[in-house]
Amino acid sequence: MKKRINDFKKQLNKRKLDALLITSLQNIAYLTGFSDFYGPEREAFLFLTRGNQFILTDGRYSESVRKLVQNFELLEISYDNPIEKIFKDLVRKLKIKKVGVEEKDLTFAEHKRISKHFNLIGLDLSDKRSIKDAKEIELIGRACKLGDKTFSYILDKIKQGITEKQIAFDIEFFIKKNGGEVSFPPLIAFGENAAIPHHKSGETKIDQKNGQFVLLDFGTKVDGYCSDMTRTVFFGKASQKQKKIYNTVYEAQQRAIAFIARELERKGFTEAASADKVARESIIKKGYATIPHSLGHGIGLEVHEHPRLSPKSKDKLKSGMVFSIEPGIYIPGFGGVRIEDLFVIEENKIRQLTNSSKALIEI
Amino acid sequence: MKKRINDFKKQLNKRKLDALLITSLQNIAYLTGFSDFYGPEREAFLFLTRGNQFILTDGRYSESVRKLVQNFELLEISYDNPIEKIFKDLVRKLKIKKVGVEEKDLTFAEHKRISKHFNLIGLDLSDKRSIKDAKEIELIGRACKLGDKTFSYILDKIKQGITEKQIAFDIEFFIKKNGGEVSFPPLIAFGENAAIPHHKSGETKIDQKNGQFVLLDFGTKVDGYCSDMTRTVFFGKASQKQKKIYNTVYEAQQRAIAFIARELERKGFTEAASADKVARESIIKKGYATIPHSLGHGIGLEVHEHPRLSPKSKDKLKSGMVFSIEPGIYIPGFGGVRIEDLFVIEENKIRQLTNSSKALIEI
Repeated sequence: MKKRINDFKKQLNKRKLDALLITSLQNIAYLTGFSDFYGPEREAFLFLTRGNQFILTDGRYSESVRKLVQNFELLEISYDNPIEKIFKDLVRKLKIKKVGVEEKDLTFAEHKRISKHFNLIGLDLSDKRSIKDAKEIELIGRACKLGDKTFSYILDKIKQGITEKQIAFDIEFFIKKNGGEVSFPPLIAFGENAAIPHHKSGETKIDQKNGQFVLLDFGTKVDGYCSDMTRTVFFGKASQKQKKIYNTVYEAQQRAIAFIARELERKGFTEAASADKVARESIIKKGYATIPHSLGHGIGLEVHEHPRLSPKSKDKLKSGMVFSIEPGIYIPGFGGVRIEDLFVIEENKIRQLTNSSKALIEI
Repeated sequence: MKKRINDFKKQLNKRKLDALLITSLQNIAYLTGFSDFYGPEREAFLFLTRGNQFILTDGRYSESVRKLVQNFELLEISYDNPIEKIFKDLVRKLKIKKVGVEEKDLTFAEHKRISKHFNLIGLDLSDKRSIKDAKEIELIGRACKLGDKTFSYILDKIKQGITEKQIAFDIEFFIKKNGGEVSFPPLIAFGENAAIPHHKSGETKIDQKNGQFVLLDFGTKVDGYCSDMTRTVFFGKASQKQKKIYNTVYEAQQRAIAFIARELERKGFTEAASADKVARESIIKKGYATIPHSLGHGIGLEVHEHPRLSPKSKDKLKSGMVFSIEPGIYIPGFGGVRIEDLFVIEENKIRQLTNSSKALIEI
């Protein structure tokens, strides 16, 4: 944790700041190891100066924070000691003027309120977590293994008449029974629903029609670290048209992987946008529409984080990064296929972390 | 939905605006009926002008939006038609200059980007949902009933050796099996963990010690509408000290309810801060510390929404509002009790929506 804190504090000199105000739950967890704060409302702040680290939270959490958080001094927010007063004291005692804030997390309302006390500079600190250490890679690996186990388990549950929601429920149940959490609500799409890249699992039943698409997109979370994987299987025999779609998506993913591996060997990194382009063009060349989303995304404490594999990304893929590669073809009114895996780069080699079969499965 | 849209548009004249930019998932669901957007990332915007309503989203959702969203024209965000271009077009075609934004939802980074196109005015629109219609009250009522059913079910599961996490898992499983969702991760606290108002369910096991606190705080969600309830029961025989705490919390809640009922009858509303004060003082008078949180909160599409029952609240409780009353006593190193129920005000009468027993339960 100390290394991480010091790494964040490098921003102070780099951006000529007196302090950093950290608000995102992920960066709070990353720097303190404490992940009990609840997302929808602002329940805590970290305040890092050259000489000190403070954690600001209220009576609901102060007991736990005292017990579990090291390296940070607790400043308790209460009716008698509101956040306004805490900020005023910090200005006075530590002569804080210029403060870096997480601009993608801080709200406009908070900005208005806090900028009364400090001169605020918007920063994007999300890329600070893009290079994972061995422990983080191990946790993501464990999350991926649990995902693979879940995929084997769920294949047996795909039976005539079952609904998307029931499959989603079963996936969640299995993951939790095995000590994990879901990293997002499972996205299960049958038949033409598979044409909707973010279809919400609903009441659609699987039916006897041959070769119905069954798109399964789900992830697990182990000790805060996420996995993410998509498989598309067929209920009944896949038609020639379906097989061609499947193989085209599969090939696009393979081409992207091979491209990244070659680039890593050649120059020690890969431009994320170039990897995106390889997969995208491979699909377009076969006569399909372009992928209506990015090719992939970094993953860690958040399901989607730095780097981005998209046409306009400026990111470079390099050692320590963990990310998805997930091409897809979606045909409105017909269906769709997406194949998604997670990968890590280690010593300039790309290694796949999710290991469920990508053979065309007919159930 | 049309009534709701028109109600929101009243802000245009009131605040002299050309448009409203709606970003919060709850307000998007409230105005469109579409609730499939996923929280952690910005996936959609609503743009309301005097004459038009637009929904801005990308290819992952456009299929579903076309199918399910009425009253809104879809402007699809894509690589060729990025959000910047859409905003530029809106400025040009509709001569939009001044735009109201949800200041508690829009991020600082979004504000920087969007304010290049429009003059932005921060608004808090969350109170627009505080008066519920009959359909909304019915849905919250159904969520509360499912909560009551869950409480009966879970009492039988509290057995020697079970962990907080297992109870939380069982609650979630039961709610989902019965067609609901959890409105937040169940907060289960055994023994001295009950002294932490927002304790995260962990590996603590229930043990043979007499009279262990078992605090159960959980909520369900039915068609997007939330319930929220807390009960504290005892594993083994409660001691005199525990009974006194329990009865003091119970009495504080009863006093607050009676106060609200009297004020409603007398003048048709109740100051939320006064209700908070009644419960708070009733606890302090018995020699306990003040409640380290608000007495209660409004609830609906969000677990916590307008109105607030807190010492500094300016809100008035009145017909159509649904909110919690949840006093608590927390003694570090010993344990705690919270009792929470939901209430609705209808025709100046207060009615309790959660109906699980509040008798002191020893298991």
